[in-house]
Amino acid sequence: MLHSHIFQEIPTHRPNTPLLDKLDTPAQLRLLSEDQLPQLAHELRAFLLYSVGQSGGHFGAGLGVVELTIALHFVFNTPEDRLVWDVGHQAYPHKILTGRRDQMTRIRHKDGLAAFPRRSESEFDTFGVGHSSTSISAALGMALAAKLQNIKRQSIAVIGDGALTAGMAFEALSHAGDVKPDMLVILNDNDMAISNSVGGLNNHLAKILSGKTYNHMRDSGKSFLSQNPNLMELARKTEEHFKGMVAPGTLFEELGFNYIGPIDGHDLPTLVATLENMKELSGPQFLHIVTKKGKGFAPAERDPIGYHAINKIAPAPKAAIASEEKPQKPKFSNVFGQWLCDIAEADPRIVGITPAMKEGSDLIAFADRFPDRYFDVAIAEQHAVTLAAGLACDGAKPVVAIYSTFLQRAYDQLIHDVSVQNLDVLFAIDRAGLVGEDGPTHAGSFDLSYLRCIPEMLIMAPSDENELRQMLNTGYHHQGPAAVRYPRGTGIGAKIEETLEQLPIGKGRVVREGHNIAILAFGTLLHETLHAAEELNATVIDMRFVKPLDTALISRLATSHSLLVTIEENTIAGGAGSGVNEFLNQAAIDIPTINLGLPDYFVEHGKPAELLKECGLDRQGILEAIQTKWSQVQLKDSAPAIDSSSQHAINQ
Amino acid sequence: MLHSHIFQEIPTHRPNTPLLDKLDTPAQLRLLSEDQLPQLAHELRAFLLYSVGQSGGHFGAGLGVVELTIALHFVFNTPEDRLVWDVGHQAYPHKILTGRRDQMTRIRHKDGLAAFPRRSESEFDTFGVGHSSTSISAALGMALAAKLQNIKRQSIAVIGDGALTAGMAFEALSHAGDVKPDMLVILNDNDMAISNSVGGLNNHLAKILSGKTYNHMRDSGKSFLSQNPNLMELARKTEEHFKGMVAPGTLFEELGFNYIGPIDGHDLPTLVATLENMKELSGPQFLHIVTKKGKGFAPAERDPIGYHAINKIAPAPKAAIASEEKPQKPKFSNVFGQWLCDIAEADPRIVGITPAMKEGSDLIAFADRFPDRYFDVAIAEQHAVTLAAGLACDGAKPVVAIYSTFLQRAYDQLIHDVSVQNLDVLFAIDRAGLVGEDGPTHAGSFDLSYLRCIPEMLIMAPSDENELRQMLNTGYHHQGPAAVRYPRGTGIGAKIEETLEQLPIGKGRVVREGHNIAILAFGTLLHETLHAAEELNATVIDMRFVKPLDTALISRLATSHSLLVTIEENTIAGGAGSGVNEFLNQAAIDIPTINLGLPDYFVEHGKPAELLKECGLDRQGILEAIQTKWSQVQLKDSAPAIDSSSQHAINQ
Repeated sequence: MLHSHIFQEIPTHRPNTPLLDKLDTPAQLRLLSEDQLPQLAHELRAFLLYSVGQSGGHFGAGLGVVELTIALHFVFNTPEDRLVWDVGHQAYPHKILTGRRDQMTRIRHKDGLAAFPRRSESEFDTFGVGHSSTSISAALGMALAAKLQNIKRQSIAVIGDGALTAGMAFEALSHAGDVKPDMLVILNDNDMAISNSVGGLNNHLAKILSGKTYNHMRDSGKSFLSQNPNLMELARKTEEHFKGMVAPGTLFEELGFNYIGPIDGHDLPTLVATLENMKELSGPQFLHIVTKKGKGFAPAERDPIGYHAINKIAPAPKAAIASEEKPQKPKFSNVFGQWLCDIAEADPRIVGITPAMKEGSDLIAFADRFPDRYFDVAIAEQHAVTLAAGLACDGAKPVVAIYSTFLQRAYDQLIHDVSVQNLDVLFAIDRAGLVGEDGPTHAGSFDLSYLRCIPEMLIMAPSDENELRQMLNTGYHHQGPAAVRYPRGTGIGAKIEETLEQLPIGKGRVVREGHNIAILAFGTLLHETLHAAEELNATVIDMRFVKPLDTALISRLATSHSLLVTIEENTIAGGAGSGVNEFLNQAAIDIPTINLGLPDYFVEHGKPAELLKECGLDRQGILEAIQTKWSQVQLKDSAPAIDSSSQHAINQ
Repeated sequence: MLHSHIFQEIPTHRPNTPLLDKLDTPAQLRLLSEDQLPQLAHELRAFLLYSVGQSGGHFGAGLGVVELTIALHFVFNTPEDRLVWDVGHQAYPHKILTGRRDQMTRIRHKDGLAAFPRRSESEFDTFGVGHSSTSISAALGMALAAKLQNIKRQSIAVIGDGALTAGMAFEALSHAGDVKPDMLVILNDNDMAISNSVGGLNNHLAKILSGKTYNHMRDSGKSFLSQNPNLMELARKTEEHFKGMVAPGTLFEELGFNYIGPIDGHDLPTLVATLENMKELSGPQFLHIVTKKGKGFAPAERDPIGYHAINKIAPAPKAAIASEEKPQKPKFSNVFGQWLCDIAEADPRIVGITPAMKEGSDLIAFADRFPDRYFDVAIAEQHAVTLAAGLACDGAKPVVAIYSTFLQRAYDQLIHDVSVQNLDVLFAIDRAGLVGEDGPTHAGSFDLSYLRCIPEMLIMAPSDENELRQMLNTGYHHQGPAAVRYPRGTGIGAKIEETLEQLPIGKGRVVREGHNIAILAFGTLLHETLHAAEELNATVIDMRFVKPLDTALISRLATSHSLLVTIEENTIAGGAGSGVNEFLNQAAIDIPTINLGLPDYFVEHGKPAELLKECGLDRQGILEAIQTKWSQVQLKDSAPAIDSSSQHAINQ
């Protein structure tokens, strides 16, 4: 049977997909007969494997929802019916079926398809995603908008079990259960988010998966009561129920949903029939399907974490086995992971906290070596930070490993629970700056701005891997909230000192002494800057600290130079350079200054180097920006001074 | 019976409280016999009423937890056992019993007790709060810290049913149910948060309250099964259960807690006995108690929302009936509420969203007149914003009414769901700037900084009430995310034009033409600034727009003046003035500039005027800051120019 065909390897040549080739829109898909759908699923899976092999990208999640995607577009009248995919790693089959088949080989490339659903890309992408757990809120909004306009249409959210651990999904379920619009939430349950999620809910879901008896009991209970029951047996099971061994879906029913499931998410006839039935029901519906991540591709079924995403395999297919590039140089995240193990070895107070990013933040070794002090709280950033605050109250030394963009989700907790109380929590902020292929939803473009305005924060930005190690150690020794923000991937490959030192708080270091121009670099762009500095014979400072600033050094530089340049991989608005401006004003230091950093727009996806070039933050861009400014300064210096007391009318 | 004594009015003289007077610490409380506790509860309630009458403040929540507070300190070994009060409006009795009785009359006054638990104030205040729903995460952190150190102690979180609607509480419950430490969560269920909360969970709780049958059934079911049952009756109820009429606590048991309750939270013997029993149980425990907000004070029992807090009544007790001052001038929140009704009348696409702040944001009339378009999502800021994004996708015009400090909780949703997609959502941001007596947890000190760094945002700050009205209208007409931030309370009392105009985007207005000094005011501090401007004959601009800035105007001002002053009620770090600095650098405009705004520390509680003075943002402070800077500028202008090409060694 086609349905159960398992691919053993990724096709390196375009597979033969005669049925799929005819489908440019879901409307055409809906013209198929239902018995053609298994064939389509087979072709879609083959094409997905092939195209991701060509482009690199995520496919574990996509393979798991091949049947669901077909069933949804077959049953519902998309795009008129609103289909909201949570997170979006699962949206590749959806993109293939909605007119973007031929563009799939360039997904995540610059100017190619985005990694995630994107409203500007297709009318079938009803809601852009990237961070998890937003789909129920969005679909509820759409359902309410339809209701207000008396439009009869369906709103469907497809959410994974990992994403369901986030509080906002619960908030949305709770609200939907109250206002009761016509909407459908589909729980795509593979019991495995990117990392192995934990939390009571996932336990609950695990129970469900092994809970066929209960589901059976539940259904049989219903009919049984209308027939002639073996009441003792029912009573026994009821007692078990009362002890907490609950039937699946109770939680969702309590919240006001009509729960149906779990059903096999790879069984197309059942999926289609169930969706057809549920389409007719009014009020909030909840369908629980069970799928297998990586379904139909043997290596991914065996190792779903390793096959969450792959790099492109063409033209060297053999490289495909490695799910991530294995460079000689350690990544910044590896340096963090190593430091955390080293410090945990020395200090039993250290605990490590991650919101479901064990692999991404490289807490693998730490979790293995210090399981009692390792807390993966699931996708629950808010809780992660306040949990850390609670731990810090009672003598633990919590380290929160989090991506820059996900820390946005715990911003209030960082302010209200950690900073207001000046608690000793260290934030290891990964993926700061542009991240490349994942695009604007994952870029860490704002952390220096949103952290710098918070009192009590110590903020550091390492220029290389060893600096990261020493800054983490500095933050560890610092009493109070501290943050180290570092980029995705690898750096210059600096030698990492095993010994740990404490950097002097709020002190930068002179990297190059020059004339006229002083460049204050915050973070890894230091190295691109050095090339410009050679050309211009400029002074270069590795500022190290975004907060507190090395104001003494800046003051000295200002008296000995004619132009200050600040540079950072963060938006200019409110960033590190902005702090320098504020200090100069406050200290009444008058010196021409230019702020280089990310622009005031959302930078799209592409290779990091391409994106930095676009932002003028590559070697050449930096040089040109400084040269231009320097010409202006020299021109002004040679011009006659403007009489500063001169007055002109203010014409609006 | 003392337990049921109902006060009819607030005592204006210190009541006779002989038992309470002897208790300076909970250790002394624990020396009482259990039968003395009802007397203590009576005295505590009397004293609470008296002291809040003297100081002003919150007491509805406090009256509801008089018995619980006594029982907790009686049963548990505080402060060694960790007691975490959620939100903290309920912590007044706790403060009275933990050595702060004599300071209660100055609660919320400058240099007096804080409105909320505060770690720096007492060792009994284990965790500072202000925003809701943090207690479970914090208590879990403390429980885990104790476990890691092999310390046997209890961690107790007391959380209201309103606070439980927030996603982060769910995240924490979910995590606790997984890691299973010894901890106790007490749900203080009065089915009324500040506003009437909604959401599936509260429905669920409402069901519980009316669900005595089910609770009874549950208990009787257990014993019944071990005896000789009327199985048909049980089966009937079981069927109801299967239909979703669930027993209380199922949700919490599913998440991994041992659930007990609901019990009467005003019944001291039962409370004490239950807590004594639960203290001995290991693993995560959940106790559900039902209390009455305002318990024991007749007017508050009748009108718990009106009596959420009161202004102080001494020396004019008659004024106490009004729970909030009723000034002639409308508050900014009233102006917003009126505008929303006006625009909703004209445009059926308008929807209003509040995270449980119907009264605070003044959505009362809107909710009444447009119930279909009014969404109180409960304490669920994250969901509120993404719901708005979903609504905006499908042709609705959502207006999110939210406090500045609570928007911090939806920061990622604002970026990821609204701004990245450039969706048409209007944020009406109340309580921007210092808020006074509620202190740093409620101050809106950061919004201009955390919003300004986000691309696509239109950000406005009105200088008076009519400006607010027109800016809301401008944001409504603007396609894309827009924010208007305005302060708590009343403004100058500007005449409010009924007609609605659209302000030109990114254009400031000249309020006063002067010489030498140009003051760029963002928001209501404009009016304090005008006094300084008279003194100094300075130009004054009402900038109106924080983003985009009126760069043309700034350029003109810079050529015609010798000093620019920016002023805002937001932290200087990254705020509106910082945007001016960035523009000046970018445009290579060289003019002395001073940035006035909130300092880089958490400003404590006190009267708004006192706090502004402390920050140098009162009339006198502003004048002095500008005068000082102006003297420097004049001094420099008269000094010989420094040779800007001169070089000195950089001495670190």
